[in-house]
Amino acid sequence: MVNIAHLINVSTRPLTAPFAPRMAPAMRFFSDNAAAACPEAMAAIDEANRLDTAYDGDAWSKRLNEAFSGLFERDVEALWVSTGTAANSLALAALCPPHGRIVCHRHAHIEIDECGAPEFYTGGAKLMLGAGEGAKLKPDTVAGLLGTVRNDVHQAQPTALSITNATEYGLVYTPGETAALGELCRERGLGFHVDGARFANAVASLGCTPADLTWRAGVDALSFGFTKNGGLSAEALIFFRPELAAATHYRRKRAGHLLSKGRYLAAQILAMLEGGVWLKNAGAANAAAARLAEAAGADRLVLPVEANEMFVRVTPEEAAALRREGFDFYDWGPGEARLVTSWDSDPAHVDALAAAIRAL
Amino acid sequence: MVNIAHLINVSTRPLTAPFAPRMAPAMRFFSDNAAAACPEAMAAIDEANRLDTAYDGDAWSKRLNEAFSGLFERDVEALWVSTGTAANSLALAALCPPHGRIVCHRHAHIEIDECGAPEFYTGGAKLMLGAGEGAKLKPDTVAGLLGTVRNDVHQAQPTALSITNATEYGLVYTPGETAALGELCRERGLGFHVDGARFANAVASLGCTPADLTWRAGVDALSFGFTKNGGLSAEALIFFRPELAAATHYRRKRAGHLLSKGRYLAAQILAMLEGGVWLKNAGAANAAAARLAEAAGADRLVLPVEANEMFVRVTPEEAAALRREGFDFYDWGPGEARLVTSWDSDPAHVDALAAAIRAL
Amino acid sequence: MVNIAHLINVSTRPLTAPFAPRMAPAMRFFSDNAAAACPEAMAAIDEANRLDTAYDGDAWSKRLNEAFSGLFERDVEALWVSTGTAANSLALAALCPPHGRIVCHRHAHIEIDECGAPEFYTGGAKLMLGAGEGAKLKPDTVAGLLGTVRNDVHQAQPTALSITNATEYGLVYTPGETAALGELCRERGLGFHVDGARFANAVASLGCTPADLTWRAGVDALSFGFTKNGGLSAEALIFFRPELAAATHYRRKRAGHLLSKGRYLAAQILAMLEGGVWLKNAGAANAAAARLAEAAGADRLVLPVEANEMFVRVTPEEAAALRREGFDFYDWGPGEARLVTSWDSDPAHVDALAAAIRAL
Amino acid sequence: MVNIAHLINVSTRPLTAPFAPRMAPAMRFFSDNAAAACPEAMAAIDEANRLDTAYDGDAWSKRLNEAFSGLFERDVEALWVSTGTAANSLALAALCPPHGRIVCHRHAHIEIDECGAPEFYTGGAKLMLGAGEGAKLKPDTVAGLLGTVRNDVHQAQPTALSITNATEYGLVYTPGETAALGELCRERGLGFHVDGARFANAVASLGCTPADLTWRAGVDALSFGFTKNGGLSAEALIFFRPELAAATHYRRKRAGHLLSKGRYLAAQILAMLEGGVWLKNAGAANAAAARLAEAAGADRLVLPVEANEMFVRVTPEEAAALRREGFDFYDWGPGEARLVTSWDSDPAHVDALAAAIRAL
Repeated sequence: MVNIAHLINVSTRPLTAPFAPRMAPAMRFFSDNAAAACPEAMAAIDEANRLDTAYDGDAWSKRLNEAFSGLFERDVEALWVSTGTAANSLALAALCPPHGRIVCHRHAHIEIDECGAPEFYTGGAKLMLGAGEGAKLKPDTVAGLLGTVRNDVHQAQPTALSITNATEYGLVYTPGETAALGELCRERGLGFHVDGARFANAVASLGCTPADLTWRAGVDALSFGFTKNGGLSAEALIFFRPELAAATHYRRKRAGHLLSKGRYLAAQILAMLEGGVWLKNAGAANAAAARLAEAAGADRLVLPVEANEMFVRVTPEEAAALRREGFDFYDWGPGEARLVTSWDSDPAHVDALAAAIRAL
Repeated sequence: MVNIAHLINVSTRPLTAPFAPRMAPAMRFFSDNAAAACPEAMAAIDEANRLDTAYDGDAWSKRLNEAFSGLFERDVEALWVSTGTAANSLALAALCPPHGRIVCHRHAHIEIDECGAPEFYTGGAKLMLGAGEGAKLKPDTVAGLLGTVRNDVHQAQPTALSITNATEYGLVYTPGETAALGELCRERGLGFHVDGARFANAVASLGCTPADLTWRAGVDALSFGFTKNGGLSAEALIFFRPELAAATHYRRKRAGHLLSKGRYLAAQILAMLEGGVWLKNAGAANAAAARLAEAAGADRLVLPVEANEMFVRVTPEEAAALRREGFDFYDWGPGEARLVTSWDSDPAHVDALAAAIRAL
Repeated sequence: MVNIAHLINVSTRPLTAPFAPRMAPAMRFFSDNAAAACPEAMAAIDEANRLDTAYDGDAWSKRLNEAFSGLFERDVEALWVSTGTAANSLALAALCPPHGRIVCHRHAHIEIDECGAPEFYTGGAKLMLGAGEGAKLKPDTVAGLLGTVRNDVHQAQPTALSITNATEYGLVYTPGETAALGELCRERGLGFHVDGARFANAVASLGCTPADLTWRAGVDALSFGFTKNGGLSAEALIFFRPELAAATHYRRKRAGHLLSKGRYLAAQILAMLEGGVWLKNAGAANAAAARLAEAAGADRLVLPVEANEMFVRVTPEEAAALRREGFDFYDWGPGEARLVTSWDSDPAHVDALAAAIRAL
Repeated sequence: MVNIAHLINVSTRPLTAPFAPRMAPAMRFFSDNAAAACPEAMAAIDEANRLDTAYDGDAWSKRLNEAFSGLFERDVEALWVSTGTAANSLALAALCPPHGRIVCHRHAHIEIDECGAPEFYTGGAKLMLGAGEGAKLKPDTVAGLLGTVRNDVHQAQPTALSITNATEYGLVYTPGETAALGELCRERGLGFHVDGARFANAVASLGCTPADLTWRAGVDALSFGFTKNGGLSAEALIFFRPELAAATHYRRKRAGHLLSKGRYLAAQILAMLEGGVWLKNAGAANAAAARLAEAAGADRLVLPVEANEMFVRVTPEEAAALRREGFDFYDWGPGEARLVTSWDSDPAHVDALAAAIRAL
């Protein structure tokens, strides 16, 4: 064993001190993706930083099935992963063979923002895109898409439906709307996946039980997001038909998503389930969005605000004015802007933005 | 927006309080995978829990290239990922087409412990397995394997070599040994990857510069492990030929490995580079292993102890006796056991184990 | 070596004699896919049934590059395969990485009728679908699609354009129209593929040179169909940039498309190139379609008839009447029918159909 | 429609007449891959060159299930493909998920000569290689390999066994030997595939029924080769558990192996089943090999000659002498040569080679 002292400062270009990352000075409304981790999640990480075992053999990971089974009022199988893209893709790989098709909205995250991850994980399945206001699919739309596929080997056959709840445009599917799609899936033999990156926001908005919005409505698999909602990096993939999970354990490993210190992920998730932190956080984000929506008024709103995303009509000049006041957000097509609140939206920032919108 | 109060305790099967995961009572020598995160990494996570932007656009992520370029004394491109399997597979996908072969040791982690991740990421490339003591490959062995492949379209052609340093059996490749393999790769047109899940342990053991053990020896890509060495979940994938990295950014996203809050990963890595924490931690693990090796004596050692893993000859009775004393470790074939130390191996535990081994 | 006499009739359920497959009694206008092989192709197969070597090492296969280089007036690399789906998919795999996108028409064969073959061969690339009359894409449409893709890692990036000439709806792209798309590809860095399952029909229709319709117009790879046009089972994949072909030789083998007796494929293709059989056959099919088009008149035609496919407006009653007279064809949406002629369309059948259409 | 007359001779570099492929002057013993198509197959192709429908909807294709069900004395599902690599890969994709392993001999064609086709079709499964004389696997060897795999998610789990009968070294598995492996597969839950590129030679050699050598011995899927045995390009993929075939129809299409004029393949196969042509041809090849084996004598034979391949010990000088006499064959490692007979081995050539070997 050599003396390593001389190696401690091996860098020839030393890291410049002080270590000072640029902190966003703006009032952040561009994404809940960049929110902080909530105190409960951070405390759980500290707690998990005690000795235990590796991968998903630890005490926290082993409690996930029970915890989610409680929440969903039935036996489920739950796997942690570190991103929503991984959760979605693993779910879809469980529901769709390489020669299958996944029906989804043309604005679905799995189509728009995952660089072909579903295609990678499924081994080359096709996505089949439908339209609908606010990134919501209706049964008629889905049935129409299904009707365009001939039942022969020249065409990849639809085997799964994937919806996002709350949607990429901030709308929610009610339990009834979900159940109507679930019924269609049952009739046509499709697996039913929900991308729930903002599932908590949907539940908080609807006041329904998680069960009503999932398996009671025919959902087979749910990507249950915790990262946008106050986790550091933690998503739960929930299978309501546990037999679907068997191969997924292998796929998760094979995709490099079985973290060796998975206990930190499990601990975050458990901490956010305890005492309803997940709902509290989502409710706070939704409430902030509601306040902004009220300030904007119906005329400015492109869509109803049902969760924590808001799309408003603003002229380029108005958008520029808001930015000058320190608000950070995305333009969303010509004459529109997207405003996203999060569990940690600063009330003062929300008040300021509400006032600024009113003053436009 | 509904009142969510009634949903806070939606679980019908409440999570049983108190939240008390089983903490390993044993003295842990079974894997560095289960080590705690070091204080510097934990502090960095706290630091990163301030507002910034998403994915890898944040200030921490943007400093990775510079930090590693300093460490390696040349321009490199560095990407964070959350597991070593992801780092290895992304590196191999950059070096090997679907119709290629990757030469590696038969005991390589990529062959033995990744459930086919290289095959998944490369689109079905083949691994080509060589033998060698202590999971080390020699140029003659590699050349021999290459010589078995006909240069025609009926056989997948070798395009990459992957070694592990320190190896899965705790040996290290010296800069000279690495360079000999690198020279062979250059002659035969192979890409050269190093799985450095324990790269820090190798550097600490050898007292060489990171540059000497990588690009100066012909290495194209390195999986630089931080997780086993005190990170929470953080690995760096280093490309010494930056052009190899271009497609990897897409592959990382597509594999679900572009975390939306990547700043926590980058911050851990930067914190462990600062002031040589990575080397200090690895040195501590190596030193603990050295103490155990000295206690064991040459007759018990299956292989020299050059990093933080030790393989010892013990009878089943001896193994049972050690376990009764509270030491947790893996059997490793008949009459052998594996003992792994880590950055946080408790000195008292190490002393106790050294004494127990001496007393066998 | 055992006496095998007793095994000759091992079947317990003997094949019923006489061997009498149902021969289509109808006058066939449903697809050129079902046409016979032309005399020249059949003679070539007989010729190739002499001894030579295996795979693509035989004398016929070795002449393909030269033959197509002559036809295309430049050095090309040509590989035989047995289906158009294989040719298309191999071409696209050469032009598009797994994280790429292929722009094509929403009615393109690669999207509609190949069960996800492009996704399989590319490792999960996405198709990006445009609209346009008669399955033709215009530069503006392509540019519009490209404009919807953000240049970031969250979205698979367009890397290839694929058009079909003649299209799935029987229209042709002129050299000028092709060149306009080729210019767009050059500007945007896209590879350019032409699915030429009916390339011969397009050339015969346009009276241009094959060069003008391909590489002089910026095309990188062409699936040059011989099967519909009188081959038994033979397609040529032509690379106008030979460097694109290198990996394709491996991909062809790896996909199981390197026939051990490839000489029969090569011989068919050479025989159809000799003396312009390919053009003569295509011209015959086109001429038959033109006669039907003239009979139908402009009012019945859904689209101009530019090759060997015709889409006509017919009521269900009219379609039924035609079928009663013995004409076999596909309905193509409500109130429309598709009529396809082939190199071997029986002139008497064509005359009869023309008369029947006139009489409607 | 343009006048195409001027295009008939569009080639600027005309194909040089006379069309004279190099015919192998040598007496061919290098591979049965290069054999001619037998008269029955050629006649069937002529017969199929009458009108019928496309893909596998024709009368010949529709008779395959019945024909093979008769031959195998049970209901089977049979699909034609054009190569053995395609048949093997489709079979393995039906038996092995992407996260699985296929046990095979280290000299198996699927490992050695298919450029990773099984990995491509399965989506990245691993092959697991065993040793054994003459490319034969024994149950103990297979069990030993299975015993090296831990039953956890870090390792791809074995799900299939693939053997080759007759083997790549010309040995045969008896029904009893096959059944012993089949029993092991049943116990361990493995699918059982036989690569029967020379299945006919094995049956002819053993004098058993096809049923005894397959499903009665536990085989799930068989690649039944016709190409080496006198077909032009035709292989049958037989599923003894028809439920395995459902997805294979899609995979075949998706791989580009659903020929639009599949009737020519089906017709060849049916013609070779009629009257036991397949057995007659294989018997002829075997008999020729037996004559050569007798001439060589036990001392020269590396392995017993049980089918149509023979491996003989010859010095480089002896090999050169045989080649000077006009015999074409492969060297097979130092001091060994491979001699392969086929259905159409010229008796005069066989006599001459037998004499030449005796004269060495």
